[in-house]
Amino acid sequence: MTLQEIANYIGLDITSDKEITGLNTLTDSTEFELTFLENKKYLSDLKNTKAAAVLVTQENSSEVPQNTIALICDEPYLMLAKISKLFAPNVIEMDGEKPLVGGGTKVMPNVYIGKNSVIGSDCTIMAGAFIGDNVTIGNNTIIYPNVTIYRDCKVGNDCIIHAGTVVGSDGFGFANTKDGKYIKIYQNGNVEIGNDVEIGANCTIDRAVFKTTKIDSGVRIDNLVHIGHNCKISSGCILVSQVGLSGSTTLHPYVVMGGQSATAGHLEIAPFTTIAARGGVTKTIHEPKKQWAGFPLFEHRQWLKLQGKISNLLK
Amino acid sequence: MTLQEIANYIGLDITSDKEITGLNTLTDSTEFELTFLENKKYLSDLKNTKAAAVLVTQENSSEVPQNTIALICDEPYLMLAKISKLFAPNVIEMDGEKPLVGGGTKVMPNVYIGKNSVIGSDCTIMAGAFIGDNVTIGNNTIIYPNVTIYRDCKVGNDCIIHAGTVVGSDGFGFANTKDGKYIKIYQNGNVEIGNDVEIGANCTIDRAVFKTTKIDSGVRIDNLVHIGHNCKISSGCILVSQVGLSGSTTLHPYVVMGGQSATAGHLEIAPFTTIAARGGVTKTIHEPKKQWAGFPLFEHRQWLKLQGKISNLLK
Amino acid sequence: MTLQEIANYIGLDITSDKEITGLNTLTDSTEFELTFLENKKYLSDLKNTKAAAVLVTQENSSEVPQNTIALICDEPYLMLAKISKLFAPNVIEMDGEKPLVGGGTKVMPNVYIGKNSVIGSDCTIMAGAFIGDNVTIGNNTIIYPNVTIYRDCKVGNDCIIHAGTVVGSDGFGFANTKDGKYIKIYQNGNVEIGNDVEIGANCTIDRAVFKTTKIDSGVRIDNLVHIGHNCKISSGCILVSQVGLSGSTTLHPYVVMGGQSATAGHLEIAPFTTIAARGGVTKTIHEPKKQWAGFPLFEHRQWLKLQGKISNLLK
Repeated sequence: MTLQEIANYIGLDITSDKEITGLNTLTDSTEFELTFLENKKYLSDLKNTKAAAVLVTQENSSEVPQNTIALICDEPYLMLAKISKLFAPNVIEMDGEKPLVGGGTKVMPNVYIGKNSVIGSDCTIMAGAFIGDNVTIGNNTIIYPNVTIYRDCKVGNDCIIHAGTVVGSDGFGFANTKDGKYIKIYQNGNVEIGNDVEIGANCTIDRAVFKTTKIDSGVRIDNLVHIGHNCKISSGCILVSQVGLSGSTTLHPYVVMGGQSATAGHLEIAPFTTIAARGGVTKTIHEPKKQWAGFPLFEHRQWLKLQGKISNLLK
Repeated sequence: MTLQEIANYIGLDITSDKEITGLNTLTDSTEFELTFLENKKYLSDLKNTKAAAVLVTQENSSEVPQNTIALICDEPYLMLAKISKLFAPNVIEMDGEKPLVGGGTKVMPNVYIGKNSVIGSDCTIMAGAFIGDNVTIGNNTIIYPNVTIYRDCKVGNDCIIHAGTVVGSDGFGFANTKDGKYIKIYQNGNVEIGNDVEIGANCTIDRAVFKTTKIDSGVRIDNLVHIGHNCKISSGCILVSQVGLSGSTTLHPYVVMGGQSATAGHLEIAPFTTIAARGGVTKTIHEPKKQWAGFPLFEHRQWLKLQGKISNLLK
Repeated sequence: MTLQEIANYIGLDITSDKEITGLNTLTDSTEFELTFLENKKYLSDLKNTKAAAVLVTQENSSEVPQNTIALICDEPYLMLAKISKLFAPNVIEMDGEKPLVGGGTKVMPNVYIGKNSVIGSDCTIMAGAFIGDNVTIGNNTIIYPNVTIYRDCKVGNDCIIHAGTVVGSDGFGFANTKDGKYIKIYQNGNVEIGNDVEIGANCTIDRAVFKTTKIDSGVRIDNLVHIGHNCKISSGCILVSQVGLSGSTTLHPYVVMGGQSATAGHLEIAPFTTIAARGGVTKTIHEPKKQWAGFPLFEHRQWLKLQGKISNLLK
């Protein structure tokens, strides 16, 4: 789609036959992508963006770099939401190749496999599983019954995904209009799961708004865990049941999150961090190999000590 | 069913050919419905009920209004539970019309659509979805794979329901017998979802015991959210992942509930209230536009201040 | 499989044609089973084990009883993990008898029922349900759409399992290698559900690692509840929505767990205990009939008093 077509769609009058391939953040955009700035906090990212164009307010437009075209508007985030629909793939592909299924793979009845999807060898795809369009699954992976894998997602080798789990559902994103409507930000990214990953039953792993939600190799996830869009779960992480991760949070390698613990969005958690059950993480954790607990979060020993002090209040 | 038949079913000897169409609360019952009083707290509602008849103890029977027949018994709530079974619809309808599906609607393989159900135009019903009997779905709605919509529920136009979500499962209700058995209160109501509602993956929205669990137009619900029977979620509300609402709670317009927050049952939450992540609401919130946090709940600023005071205990 | 074959599989050189039928704990092993000791805390159990053989370190091997063969190794738990694969049943049985379905039972379209499975009379098995191999279901039980029951599980009479619930998914268990890999402990047990049990929507009940995860008769479980492997939920227990139970915890009869409450693993909770919503149980509760709340857990009255004291900090 040309930049001109996109601009026209939101009522801007710009002449440009520049081809735009998608949407992305200020920092990750290529010269073929469109980005946006809503929050002044990211002004420094604007200065360094390589994006083809940026949705930006008049006020912030002076910071747009030379090679980036400014699309000046009052509500950049809302405009991004509207434009995101233009880049949304079809919910179901009508055209495309029949799926390829490797040797030794068992596909049970009542399984749907979409167009252009490729499943490796020696897999087991159990009844009621849904494998969307353009999905790839490696070798020797087990997909249990009633799992749903949305279009464009990737699953590696030697994985196990338990029943009812959903991979690639839309992340939770929308922009507000002034009159109180929510405009969906189409989640045009995907989910990529490495090798040797086991995911429990009835989990939900949202697809990225841009690019990819990542579950690296060797991760272990228990049941009823929620992983928001654009999270990255690094190798060796362990997520116990009912954990919830908000969007864009990165767990570095070997982070352990106890049952019902959770994180806010856009955080980083250092390698070998342990969050005790019910811990609630609201800030980035820089220092590796520490144990944390509680909500608000304290170092685990401090939290235990604090609980002692609190219970002393009863005396 | 006549009142006499109903009375006989629970061992009461009453002569009345009054036709009873269903069960309902003291306040909502019409003159064709049967109600009950177990908890004295609701005695004033008894005085004003319009119900055809009421299950009531001897002790409370003097307050039954003139046009209402008293069905005097020792355990009104237990009797209600027993009677609820008489009004339960079939789990699967054997008779009825074939479903109607509007123009432009795509129905994928392995979808079941029940008797008398009506699906509008330009919808997408994805593989593995179950649409029960007597369900109506509007136009331009997407039902993702492995969604289950129980019988009698309604979904509006322009909705998106993500994979694995369950709409219309039974609310959690039962009466105790003296010897410790639980007698199911059949959940004979339904769920009604307005227009432009998006619901994430693996949520559960319970059908009402009487009448309707309501999700109004414009609501946004993230993944793994639980909504109890007879809740009402008003327009513009946002429920982040892993939120839990107990039964009969009303969220007024534009309430925002952060991740893993929850409410007790039978509450009202005022418009534009924000509950921070993990907040636990146990009392009605009357004043609109306030921010709350914690469990027990405090105004957000107070909660932050309190956490400071608590952490001072470590000094 | 002979003990020799098993020992060879993990690189031990032992001559024994003793037939081993499975794996089990120190205390529960029969004379045909293999067990392990990793944690010295269980040394006294080792002395009393009846197991055919035990994986044990050199250091602890002196405590192995006379009739038990010591399989001496550096990492007994890791070796157990490796061996567990040898005893894992097939994910799908290729051979076996066609399922038997009793009179009056309705099986909707898109249902899969596995080999050797037996479903009683007057049941309703709704569309999209998956009933694995070697499953037995009693009479008059309703399995709602898109429920998954893994192989070898048992469900009694008069049960209701709501949509999307998963029964018998793998428990969360693995052993660590020194280089940071997780080796799956195959969950070779099952789940057994008694009579008159109702389970809500999108719950997950994990199969046992050895033997059985038990849900006794008369239990009521709400939506989105997680029950870990080898738990035992006794008769009359009530689990409200979003409860999470870690593995090997026993709820004695008539325990009530409020919404979002949780327990650590390997605990016992005395009969008629009530855990308030959000309560977090980390220690065994010996005394019956008490009410508890909070995390850390206090007696409910104490917890309320404590909250008063805490809020006084704001003054």
